[in-house]
Amino acid sequence: MDLQRLQQQIRFIVEIDQLKAVLRRSYVISSRRKENSAEHSWHLAIMAVLLAEHANEAVDLLRVVKMLLIHDIVEIDAGDTYAYDGAGALHRVERERRAADRLFGLLPQDQASELHGLWEEFEARATPESRFAKALDHLMPLLHNYHTQGLSWQEHGITDDLVLAYNSHIRDGSEALWQVACSVIEESVAKGFLSSG
Amino acid sequence: MDLQRLQQQIRFIVEIDQLKAVLRRSYVISSRRKENSAEHSWHLAIMAVLLAEHANEAVDLLRVVKMLLIHDIVEIDAGDTYAYDGAGALHRVERERRAADRLFGLLPQDQASELHGLWEEFEARATPESRFAKALDHLMPLLHNYHTQGLSWQEHGITDDLVLAYNSHIRDGSEALWQVACSVIEESVAKGFLSSG
Repeated sequence: MDLQRLQQQIRFIVEIDQLKAVLRRSYVISSRRKENSAEHSWHLAIMAVLLAEHANEAVDLLRVVKMLLIHDIVEIDAGDTYAYDGAGALHRVERERRAADRLFGLLPQDQASELHGLWEEFEARATPESRFAKALDHLMPLLHNYHTQGLSWQEHGITDDLVLAYNSHIRDGSEALWQVACSVIEESVAKGFLSSG
Repeated sequence: MDLQRLQQQIRFIVEIDQLKAVLRRSYVISSRRKENSAEHSWHLAIMAVLLAEHANEAVDLLRVVKMLLIHDIVEIDAGDTYAYDGAGALHRVERERRAADRLFGLLPQDQASELHGLWEEFEARATPESRFAKALDHLMPLLHNYHTQGLSWQEHGITDDLVLAYNSHIRDGSEALWQVACSVIEESVAKGFLSSG
């Protein structure tokens, strides 16, 4: 056993406990508290397992799951940037890149490279795995909003045209899930959870 | 696209949002609030990705990760049973079996069978994958206790002999992680986080 390697791995595992303290804008359905990025990542990973059959292209499921488990880890240093916050997004890239270097850099070299690569792949959306993973990351907040009567949309004055435009990437990963997204948006407007823009 | 199948999958995904409201006895390191079972499951899934090389036997990593993502879902109906609660454990099995039937039963038949099977495999600890997954499930609370100065151990009057006995299963999944566990327990006693029994 390589003790130093194992210690680096454990150090990283303890460090990322902090993702449980990074709050998103979406609300947990039952308790109406803000969701954190760790439990969000769990939810997406299970979605990938169950919905992989609906990806537009065949995907390596383990690769998708790994990507989703680590996709938000940079938020430990960089914070969560709200989907509809254009100004925040401007500085997001640089903040997240520094965060990725520090956090993944805690790991042994081979694992640091693998996870850093998966995070870059996710952000670039240039592979079937990353397009599908992004589709799930965009679909889940729609479901959360729908099941909390549009709570987060209303708090931030979000309208259906913004939601449709921002989430159209879902279609690149999965036509079937894009149909689900469109139904959820349509029903949300019909029920008054989401305003027309 | 099989619309009914997709609707069943989405129904399950929304239902398991409730795992984010099931609280464990361990504390999140940074904020000292009780950890929930969804974020705990995320943490274990990443541990599996990073520590699989330390399993005693070769494991199918995707199988381990799936198992860890769903291992606590029954708690939505059955609640979390504390590791050191002997009385609670008596009724746990029956409560969890009913919960597994209802929750996994929301899914299309093939996926219901797969997840139910993975949950039973995890509980039975009879395969390399389940022994390794259980080892991670036992190791993480030790790390949480150590990094919160033994907060949860002290609240429940837990002593080192109980911790050693309860967690000896770690060794069945990974000799290397058992060494980590023993070091953590030893250091916890030395620093006064854990009492000698």
